[in-house]
Amino acid sequence: MTDVLSTIKAPNDVQKIPEDRLPRLAADIRREILRTVSKNGGHLASNLGAVELTIALHRFLTFPEDKLIWDVGHQCYAHKLLTGRREDFPTLRKMGGLSGFPKTEESDCDAFDTGHSSTSLSVAAGMAKARDLRGGSNRIVAVIGDGSLSGGMAYEALNNIGRFRTNVIVVLNDNEMSISKNVGGVANYLGHLRMSQGYLSLKDNVERKLSKNHIGEVLAKGIRKTKDSIRQIMIPGDFFEELGLTYFGPVDGHSVSDINMALQAAAKIRGGVLIHVITKKGKGYSRAEESPSRFHGIGPFRLTTGQLRYPSSERSYTEVFGETCTDIAAEYPDVVCVTAAMTGGTGLTEMARRFPRRFFDVGIAEEHAVTFSAGMAASGLIPIVCVYSTFLQRAYDQILHDVCLNRKHVVFAVDRAGFVADDGETHQGLFDIAFLSQMPGMTVMAPANGAELRQMLSFAVAADGPVAVRYPKSTKDSDLPCRADVKLGRCLELQRGERVAISFLGPFESMVREVADNLAADGVTPTVANARFAAPFDEAWIRGLVYSHETLVTVEEGVSAGGYGETIAAWCNEQGVNLRVVVIAAPKAFFAQASREELLAGSGLTADAVTAKIRGLL
Amino acid sequence: MTDVLSTIKAPNDVQKIPEDRLPRLAADIRREILRTVSKNGGHLASNLGAVELTIALHRFLTFPEDKLIWDVGHQCYAHKLLTGRREDFPTLRKMGGLSGFPKTEESDCDAFDTGHSSTSLSVAAGMAKARDLRGGSNRIVAVIGDGSLSGGMAYEALNNIGRFRTNVIVVLNDNEMSISKNVGGVANYLGHLRMSQGYLSLKDNVERKLSKNHIGEVLAKGIRKTKDSIRQIMIPGDFFEELGLTYFGPVDGHSVSDINMALQAAAKIRGGVLIHVITKKGKGYSRAEESPSRFHGIGPFRLTTGQLRYPSSERSYTEVFGETCTDIAAEYPDVVCVTAAMTGGTGLTEMARRFPRRFFDVGIAEEHAVTFSAGMAASGLIPIVCVYSTFLQRAYDQILHDVCLNRKHVVFAVDRAGFVADDGETHQGLFDIAFLSQMPGMTVMAPANGAELRQMLSFAVAADGPVAVRYPKSTKDSDLPCRADVKLGRCLELQRGERVAISFLGPFESMVREVADNLAADGVTPTVANARFAAPFDEAWIRGLVYSHETLVTVEEGVSAGGYGETIAAWCNEQGVNLRVVVIAAPKAFFAQASREELLAGSGLTADAVTAKIRGLL
Repeated sequence: MTDVLSTIKAPNDVQKIPEDRLPRLAADIRREILRTVSKNGGHLASNLGAVELTIALHRFLTFPEDKLIWDVGHQCYAHKLLTGRREDFPTLRKMGGLSGFPKTEESDCDAFDTGHSSTSLSVAAGMAKARDLRGGSNRIVAVIGDGSLSGGMAYEALNNIGRFRTNVIVVLNDNEMSISKNVGGVANYLGHLRMSQGYLSLKDNVERKLSKNHIGEVLAKGIRKTKDSIRQIMIPGDFFEELGLTYFGPVDGHSVSDINMALQAAAKIRGGVLIHVITKKGKGYSRAEESPSRFHGIGPFRLTTGQLRYPSSERSYTEVFGETCTDIAAEYPDVVCVTAAMTGGTGLTEMARRFPRRFFDVGIAEEHAVTFSAGMAASGLIPIVCVYSTFLQRAYDQILHDVCLNRKHVVFAVDRAGFVADDGETHQGLFDIAFLSQMPGMTVMAPANGAELRQMLSFAVAADGPVAVRYPKSTKDSDLPCRADVKLGRCLELQRGERVAISFLGPFESMVREVADNLAADGVTPTVANARFAAPFDEAWIRGLVYSHETLVTVEEGVSAGGYGETIAAWCNEQGVNLRVVVIAAPKAFFAQASREELLAGSGLTADAVTAKIRGLL
Repeated sequence: MTDVLSTIKAPNDVQKIPEDRLPRLAADIRREILRTVSKNGGHLASNLGAVELTIALHRFLTFPEDKLIWDVGHQCYAHKLLTGRREDFPTLRKMGGLSGFPKTEESDCDAFDTGHSSTSLSVAAGMAKARDLRGGSNRIVAVIGDGSLSGGMAYEALNNIGRFRTNVIVVLNDNEMSISKNVGGVANYLGHLRMSQGYLSLKDNVERKLSKNHIGEVLAKGIRKTKDSIRQIMIPGDFFEELGLTYFGPVDGHSVSDINMALQAAAKIRGGVLIHVITKKGKGYSRAEESPSRFHGIGPFRLTTGQLRYPSSERSYTEVFGETCTDIAAEYPDVVCVTAAMTGGTGLTEMARRFPRRFFDVGIAEEHAVTFSAGMAASGLIPIVCVYSTFLQRAYDQILHDVCLNRKHVVFAVDRAGFVADDGETHQGLFDIAFLSQMPGMTVMAPANGAELRQMLSFAVAADGPVAVRYPKSTKDSDLPCRADVKLGRCLELQRGERVAISFLGPFESMVREVADNLAADGVTPTVANARFAAPFDEAWIRGLVYSHETLVTVEEGVSAGGYGETIAAWCNEQGVNLRVVVIAAPKAFFAQASREELLAGSGLTADAVTAKIRGLL
């Protein structure tokens, strides 16, 4: 059989493929995705589920004039394969290779860089308004999953699209999942839509909508006001219609022709249209269909067995956190856990199983997660909010206004802190040290090993006020022992030397010991400390260095601006503490995908680079 | 006539007042509010509108066991008058006096400190879950305005309340306004509810809901599934019911007995209930009823005329911005303006009038405002996002992820930056310098006078990438001339001296000149510069100081942590630039209400304090 995908060389080529060859094209795309993701890792289930939808969109849109915005963006692989990037596809998620997310720098068919959830509708609304003002007529489509629809800003955008008289098509890709199983009132509501309608009424639905539209606004308003009962029965989607969008659906998301019919109908309607498409995550690979969460974001795996190629024998910080959290919950009846669609990712599966009443997955809704926790804390519970560093950015104001200003005892377990492998700019967890340390009353810690993570969590639960513990997913140093109890604002000196002191925040003990060994060969014995606290940091220890040290080297896995090292450098200067502070941290920049090791090396966070830097100073 | 309010000495006393005396009580409360706000300034219209609602809630709830969470909190004056704070009421919004917002430190009847919008439902959900887990049975009510309902996190909370089997009552205080006239699909929807129903159906509605509830969940689900047409006609509120809440309304928000009937009915229902109450902003004071926006937050005014007692003859930065924005829009056809329910507050009334198609008030939805702007920028427009500093915190992630990472040319006009008078902790604009300066590619400016604000806005519109201009509402120094063109990353040296250099960011030229005069009396001539840029800051100028200066004093109106001064202090230390940096800024703390002058003085931002500090160093 001919490979249909190989005949597609450039954007829009898919429009030339005869309709009867489309199932073959879909199969080719799935094979290509499976081949590459099983080697490189990646977002498998979401991409396999969006193949027919992508083909239909590419037959409807003309690139690059028309704009297609993928929410989150972890479902864009087929889009990349159809827009001239097939040859580069084997480089997916590798340093210097294709990104796993839309990237405007890669192709003018990628309309916007995404990675975080629920932004696509706002972007599409902006592009639509710009088109109208500039007198264009291109098509603008946002594709958003049902999971992303639980994020508040998607609703802010729907609310605004509803009042615009501007043409935007929102494709709701409903697979009943965000990263974990989707939750919330809207999820239940979508469930009702799915059950009550089936696909049968689509044709009627479309005809009715079109005639309504042609009759014009006045009649439409009339129908809405009188709450025509027939309309209610024929056309679900009240929730969206109340917001002012026209609703089509549900549509079979694995039928290119059905999706296309809905898109063509939507194109005839003025204003915002929402097409509700039902897809199956993992479609076409049975193991992913059965366990879509496991195949959401996955490392390299064997296609035949579905097992990881390189299973880790060491425990990651995420695993240590998950175990500790369950243990703490068993000990403290007032401890509850809150996550935002990251149950498995943050290691909370066991917690959720053992303490279901004390575990809350609020869906993709970081803002609510934080303020909901503040409310629980106000009533005497001790919430642990478990969120990835990059997504915690969403709740900056809630942490500041609802937790810190209200002096609430909320614990933040900040996973995926520091450099995050393979996913690129949007997923790096580099800003949390800086933005959390700014906030009055916030304690910010980072463990140097797994045992210390346990200690820090116990410390945080027993403490007062807002406390954050940040750690990477990695297994780096996770099995080292915790060498002493955690005390508020105190670092842990591991070795006393002179001239140079090195204070590291996070899992850098092995690395810094290697630096110390290197320097020992030069006859220099540095002082080495595990910083533990970014805020409040150990002022007394630093003051004590001045008598026998000229230089303090700080090591952290976060952005330099406003981070641990810069805060100390500024403090030394202001306080007249006579130490030259050398900050080893990520520069103020965004970082494309690479392995964690490559990313650390790129910012000088390796033993060789730190050694060289210190030798240059001595 | 007896004063009924004076008989209320303690929380819950209102429950003893005979029903026929309640209109008199409402009148007493309104008189008290009018008397105090006309003297002290404050949020008038929202408080006058919520009097009967507050009385009804206080007859329904028992304080402090039951929890009442006011969204935003600018409608809590009657609540304060009914909970033992009448005698202190004349100190409203004064330093050391009663806050204009709920404050847990003032009274145990205030359940949570608020100030930002759309947080109340998340707090209430958290308190309800905590109550359930701890085995309590107290009542939990959140009161949220229709404006606050356009904020995404309110929807995140509704979505989660909808799936909980926990008792929460949400009172939707619908006055068709946020700060300005409310907008969006939901606003239109609420309009339909208001028009289509009237208050007549309330009794039927309540009876129907209760019987539905008693018949039980199974039948209710059945009714929902079959989309019973009668239900649709009798009971609006589909939007909320689809989310899983029971809807009651609309209810006359100026009838204590009607509200009470709805509250009593809601208390019998399991799960989340939304009571839709219609109120009139400014109720009882005709001038405020006619111009609710003008009387939203107002300074001291004359009751007889409604005119301000102390009108300013100088122009505020807000006024300068508004004029400049209109001028720029006239010059650049691609410039558009976006605000989030702050049209008047940010000075955009004229812009909105002259260029309605290029002006977007998205409602209280800062996140959408920013990403919507990023979408417009991606399509060639130049959006100016006009938001108060404290509310911009809501969009931290959108600025970072959608604007900076996407390298979009979006201009942020950050009003109310620095200390904000009278409103207290939740309204201070102290974090923007620090959090914006952290972001890769972001330019951060602050003008020293009105003419410079004009220049900076022109510079920002002509620049590339993300640019923020932050300024206070004040008139301080606003009429000084701009002494030279604005150049990227360059400060403006005003005076060359030696030993001490002073670099100020924002409207501190007069203050710093006074410091220079004071020092001249000591025989010291300091170097003085207007910093203009926090990021990128003027490295070359600072390096040039070392030959003849020992100390650099930085002056800024923002939090010290990660701010302008600390960044320079750290940089000097790391770079070995031999300058002692003395940072004059707000300490890392929250600041209660006071006048701007009192707040500046409290952080040492006065000529005397800066002079004393420098003298101590010399």
